[in-house]
Amino acid sequence: MTPTEAKRPLQLNDNGQLRHFLSLDGLPRELLTEILDTADSFLEVGARAVKKVPLLRGKTVCNVFFENSTRTRTTFELAAKRLSADVITLNVSTSSTSKGETLTDTLRNLEAMAADMFVVRHADSGAAHFIAEHVCPDVAVINGGDGRHAHPTQGMLDMLTIRRHKGDFENLSVAIVGDILHSRVARSDMLALRTLGCRDIRVIAPRPLLPVGLEQYGVKVFNDMNEGLRDVDVVVMLRLQRERMQSGLLPSEGEFYRLYGLTTERMKLASPEAIVMHPGPINRGVEIESAVADGPHSVILNQVTYGIAIRMAVLSMSMSGQVAQRQLENEAGEQN
Amino acid sequence: MTPTEAKRPLQLNDNGQLRHFLSLDGLPRELLTEILDTADSFLEVGARAVKKVPLLRGKTVCNVFFENSTRTRTTFELAAKRLSADVITLNVSTSSTSKGETLTDTLRNLEAMAADMFVVRHADSGAAHFIAEHVCPDVAVINGGDGRHAHPTQGMLDMLTIRRHKGDFENLSVAIVGDILHSRVARSDMLALRTLGCRDIRVIAPRPLLPVGLEQYGVKVFNDMNEGLRDVDVVVMLRLQRERMQSGLLPSEGEFYRLYGLTTERMKLASPEAIVMHPGPINRGVEIESAVADGPHSVILNQVTYGIAIRMAVLSMSMSGQVAQRQLENEAGEQN
Amino acid sequence: MTPTEAKRPLQLNDNGQLRHFLSLDGLPRELLTEILDTADSFLEVGARAVKKVPLLRGKTVCNVFFENSTRTRTTFELAAKRLSADVITLNVSTSSTSKGETLTDTLRNLEAMAADMFVVRHADSGAAHFIAEHVCPDVAVINGGDGRHAHPTQGMLDMLTIRRHKGDFENLSVAIVGDILHSRVARSDMLALRTLGCRDIRVIAPRPLLPVGLEQYGVKVFNDMNEGLRDVDVVVMLRLQRERMQSGLLPSEGEFYRLYGLTTERMKLASPEAIVMHPGPINRGVEIESAVADGPHSVILNQVTYGIAIRMAVLSMSMSGQVAQRQLENEAGEQN
Repeated sequence: MTPTEAKRPLQLNDNGQLRHFLSLDGLPRELLTEILDTADSFLEVGARAVKKVPLLRGKTVCNVFFENSTRTRTTFELAAKRLSADVITLNVSTSSTSKGETLTDTLRNLEAMAADMFVVRHADSGAAHFIAEHVCPDVAVINGGDGRHAHPTQGMLDMLTIRRHKGDFENLSVAIVGDILHSRVARSDMLALRTLGCRDIRVIAPRPLLPVGLEQYGVKVFNDMNEGLRDVDVVVMLRLQRERMQSGLLPSEGEFYRLYGLTTERMKLASPEAIVMHPGPINRGVEIESAVADGPHSVILNQVTYGIAIRMAVLSMSMSGQVAQRQLENEAGEQN
Repeated sequence: MTPTEAKRPLQLNDNGQLRHFLSLDGLPRELLTEILDTADSFLEVGARAVKKVPLLRGKTVCNVFFENSTRTRTTFELAAKRLSADVITLNVSTSSTSKGETLTDTLRNLEAMAADMFVVRHADSGAAHFIAEHVCPDVAVINGGDGRHAHPTQGMLDMLTIRRHKGDFENLSVAIVGDILHSRVARSDMLALRTLGCRDIRVIAPRPLLPVGLEQYGVKVFNDMNEGLRDVDVVVMLRLQRERMQSGLLPSEGEFYRLYGLTTERMKLASPEAIVMHPGPINRGVEIESAVADGPHSVILNQVTYGIAIRMAVLSMSMSGQVAQRQLENEAGEQN
Repeated sequence: MTPTEAKRPLQLNDNGQLRHFLSLDGLPRELLTEILDTADSFLEVGARAVKKVPLLRGKTVCNVFFENSTRTRTTFELAAKRLSADVITLNVSTSSTSKGETLTDTLRNLEAMAADMFVVRHADSGAAHFIAEHVCPDVAVINGGDGRHAHPTQGMLDMLTIRRHKGDFENLSVAIVGDILHSRVARSDMLALRTLGCRDIRVIAPRPLLPVGLEQYGVKVFNDMNEGLRDVDVVVMLRLQRERMQSGLLPSEGEFYRLYGLTTERMKLASPEAIVMHPGPINRGVEIESAVADGPHSVILNQVTYGIAIRMAVLSMSMSGQVAQRQLENEAGEQN
């Protein structure tokens, strides 16, 4: 290992190209912009009669899902197939791999089957990082959601949605509403918005659903939704996990909706051209009114379309960063 | 929407081409014949060393199964793959989508992922229609069986079987035997036979398993199997759903077999060249004797082969009808 | 049927080429060597940027798993996809096919869907043979493990591992350690080693885990592990099925490990260049010490890589043997 490598961030290769996609933390603005630009070009592919490009032909993408998620699995599967990759999906029940050791063995076996890329979904924060760092550094690892930590492809598809509908980030006001505490989406969104230059990021939530340390993200915190929504350009609603309600953190669904539900009435507080986003699946009448979800401000279904393009971008960029890294190492090896 | 569109049947585009495939009800004889001819041409593909044609290359077919059916899912998956499509399969448990609203959200999400085609299997009659009409009219929707209503690809593969083995429909006597009341296959078969000009359609069942309103199909009803089988050219046996027996509609399996089971002895009543069909999976000794199922009259396994070809025909024709419709609408838009 | 056919071994066509792959029993040394050579050539494919070859383009491979096995299913799926085949996977619960009759119907239906190849995994010994002989002789049947009988692709990947790491079989000492009685891997390995000319095959196990009739394999039996390991070139550890322990055949996991676990200490008895193999998944601390599994002697992950190549070899050779047989029969038919 050269000294350069030792210091290089885990997600990037020696040339600063993406090699794993684990978190938005530490990724420079130029790289996020490159991901958005690449996804833009794939959106054209999705609109063509033949939706395939041969970028990952002959490559094997393994969806390794330790936590079930039909939606995320399906979008990664579609993204990989449109890049012409072979796709293998493994639903690994967490019970059978409760020991880190066995997780390691499972993944090393997949690597030995010549998998080129892992899309990992895991209930534990940091699982994707652990795999990229300690288990299979030569396989491109994509984080498909890990615990409360990060859901970086969701973060980037949210950014793509904002850029396509509202343009430049610098002069936008963006509000993220709901259960910030348990949301990996919120975390990824705040990081991306900040990196991309957004200067007015607002977080709207009842006190018990706010994590400590929000200052580091440079956000403004609101407990009163009506106050927080005023003149925003973008509203990002979070999904309310019903099981959280039962934990006693919040009084009731009805109470939550009364205080933080996004209704037609409340939308009048936002900018008239504001867009409404939601990572899905939506709970109609719990965090969002149906009339808003299906109304003119909503870009919720566009987000799904953009999600495929973002995943295609991240898969193809990481693969090509890994291939480049391999080549750099071979050249370095020949010089020594 | 132009006045033409308003009146146009849901399944057809403005040119009268197939666009969704939901039911055989209302489809003209010419269209059914076109489906059979197209399937005939795909049967040659199935016999070739390389079984693929590029008709759906770059298209995404989503199997959306709200009701489990390995056999139907597998045949549609194979049909789509042989047309070079990408295939995504979703087993949506009915419980999580008990509200129509959520069904709608699930499908609109799939549409946003740029799915071109849905194969839908649902326990509720009319589900595929509902989706094609109200949810995703621009996605080609194929009914893979909905409640007691229709199973139109099964109906068409039965027609292909009859045409290939017995020729023209007009002079044939066809008997459908068993639980007509609960059978979507029976309904689709009666409609198709009638449209294709069959003049002697017989239905053989005990009274409790006969639906009301059979007259509209122009069929002759028999309660005595020996009488109904006399000189028929085609016997279509239906699968006996054992759970129906427990509902008290019928005395017992043994009793049903004694009265309506297709035995070697009974086959002597049919025409000597008669063929025996069954949608599968067969219950040996419940509705059909093994010697008949495996005997010289049986074309049950041929039906399976033809089923792939029919599904290839319906998938490719609906896709091309949707593409044509899009083009018609674009041209109309440019003229306005 | 010609007299030649009647006598021809089930697995081979009239030209002596592989046509089904059911067991290593009766396969000549030349054929095993051809499989190893073909797999060697596919290992190069696995190392290429585009890992696909078009050998099975347009062919349909059905994974029919009556017994669940993620690892075996995944490796066959990957192997088939790298040969450009279409792959369909069916998990057939054994319960729904407890009657041989229904198994037959399931498979004949798949055959009628124009499947070219079945990979069969079944808990009953002889299931794959039964299918190849009585159900679908024209479909190439690959045994993916049947009861205690055979796991021939595992056997061949073990041979490939030995040949690549230790060279010629004739002068090697190979020890197979553990629950020989219940292991289809052991059976396949002993057969293959013997056919390939290995003269020192040792079997190390406690008496209750030794089957009767081991003489036929020409092996030496050891109850004392330290004695059996002396100077061996290859150690094949078997996986300990924990459910066996509960049957009372053995005292306890700890006791088994003390007597037959492969530890760093014990490895000193083997040849200094010895390799350690295991079919996986490994039970660390039950049959093998972690330091050995991850240590310099271990080739356990290489086995996984070689397993894909062996499966590609067996799939492509069987398919081409079936095609050749069909041609031979057509030519014979024309001459009559």
